[in-house]
Amino acid sequence: MSEWELLSRIAAAVPKAGDDCAVIPFHNTYLLLTIDVLHRSADFPQGTDHYTMGWRAVAVTLSDIAAMGGTPLGVVLALSAPDLDEPFAGVLQGSEDCARAAGCELVGGDLDVSSELFLISSGLGVAERPVLRSGARPGDRLYLTGPLGRTYLALKLFAQGKLPSANELFRFSPRIAAGLSLQGIATSMIDLSDSLAHSLHILSRASGVGFRVEAERIPLLEGIPREELEDVLYFGEDYELLFTAPPGTLPPGPWIEIGEVTPERGIWLNRRGQLKKIADRGWEHGAPQASSNRRISERRREP
Amino acid sequence: MSEWELLSRIAAAVPKAGDDCAVIPFHNTYLLLTIDVLHRSADFPQGTDHYTMGWRAVAVTLSDIAAMGGTPLGVVLALSAPDLDEPFAGVLQGSEDCARAAGCELVGGDLDVSSELFLISSGLGVAERPVLRSGARPGDRLYLTGPLGRTYLALKLFAQGKLPSANELFRFSPRIAAGLSLQGIATSMIDLSDSLAHSLHILSRASGVGFRVEAERIPLLEGIPREELEDVLYFGEDYELLFTAPPGTLPPGPWIEIGEVTPERGIWLNRRGQLKKIADRGWEHGAPQASSNRRISERRREP
Repeated sequence: MSEWELLSRIAAAVPKAGDDCAVIPFHNTYLLLTIDVLHRSADFPQGTDHYTMGWRAVAVTLSDIAAMGGTPLGVVLALSAPDLDEPFAGVLQGSEDCARAAGCELVGGDLDVSSELFLISSGLGVAERPVLRSGARPGDRLYLTGPLGRTYLALKLFAQGKLPSANELFRFSPRIAAGLSLQGIATSMIDLSDSLAHSLHILSRASGVGFRVEAERIPLLEGIPREELEDVLYFGEDYELLFTAPPGTLPPGPWIEIGEVTPERGIWLNRRGQLKKIADRGWEHGAPQASSNRRISERRREP
Repeated sequence: MSEWELLSRIAAAVPKAGDDCAVIPFHNTYLLLTIDVLHRSADFPQGTDHYTMGWRAVAVTLSDIAAMGGTPLGVVLALSAPDLDEPFAGVLQGSEDCARAAGCELVGGDLDVSSELFLISSGLGVAERPVLRSGARPGDRLYLTGPLGRTYLALKLFAQGKLPSANELFRFSPRIAAGLSLQGIATSMIDLSDSLAHSLHILSRASGVGFRVEAERIPLLEGIPREELEDVLYFGEDYELLFTAPPGTLPPGPWIEIGEVTPERGIWLNRRGQLKKIADRGWEHGAPQASSNRRISERRREP
């Protein structure tokens, strides 16, 4: 059974699961709760510094809150490692800085000793009107908050030993402000922790719709040749927001329109009039990855 | 640097940390957020079944909420393992059953693949008047919610191959109702994830007081000889609540008075008039433990 099948089984068994965060009604509003596991062999290429690890561990969980249009209230972080003293100061500083940059605080955590380094974060947020994955309607437009290829490019830089720029790319800023401004406007939303391809399939299943994506409109980070578009499409960990909204409804913002919602379930990439199916894959086996990090995109996220 | 020193550094750097849960003011009440890491080599002896693992992973985080007098609102659980399909169904069932028994729900989670099995839970709770570790005052009495030795005895049973009773002991019920009934009454409280000895030192430092504990009053689970009292005292993972309250103020409940709060900082065990210092240790190296599980009590908890 694949991880995705297991995630489906969780979503079936756990009614509040199945979105970027669990949604808990509380005092006329909604609390958002999420947990994310990162560990060295799967998520941190050789050359990732401890500050970046701490930053990223908090950023991935805040990104889930952003994807529901939420405001973060606090993050707790657990660190488990063979020698806690070595990563401790850097991880703590990185995680605190990331939380503060997103307008909340690191409020606690846990320490443990294990043979592999693990960082697990849990984020708490609040949203009056959480944006779910299930509201996309035919005719809505499809948008991104920024270009793709962040982790794709960072791994190339790590492999080339360009560590300062690789670490900088790895320390992404969760799209909290963007997500918040889309509350009540976006009809569906998800963060691109998985690939754009897989995320489209998730929105498609949740909303009962299809998508037509314009290949030429998909923005790629500077430094990624256009020929590598399809590699990036299936790579994942871009950490932009992918969302739908009716045309002409968006507030000012960094939105990039890349396609539209269709009533038929299929997901198509349009290249100069030629339609090609976008498969439900999370990562590309042929993608350039540091060998120490070959599992980086096998990681799966919130059920 | 020891884990305890690291935890102190976190408590200094992270103002909301330093209790069983992080405390986040929200809408005239307080949200409680906590995270706990369990993994096979440190926390699950050979013979622990998957149902028990899932139960215990949720129970440890709910126990932190109980220790603040909180009501749990939901739990998320992350499972990481070499083969997810193997532990999945059992872990999910155990974690759901534990959450429901405590009056809340498993609301989401994360899946990951790693060489060692990890279970990480994060719990969200709420308390109008959270009970901190810092309010014990001289003259208060010291209480437990039940006998000690749960994990101490369970490990003996695991080592003897008595798996059904060992697993049953391992599936403790977090003391939610007890904790809740102590809101506004208990002056300080902590859950016994660490040993009674270490927990007394934590309360002592947080409240600026000392303790005198009556050896003969410390209850042990049936099956543990009284001669092993000191082993149990330093062993940990009893998961009862340890708290202080002024004499004569408690509602009806399963409280066991074991000593009193003193103005001087020392922590003393009184055995028929002979006072012996209780050291700040979390576990006993000579304690009987399955060899596969020798690190079970090295685990440290919330900063």
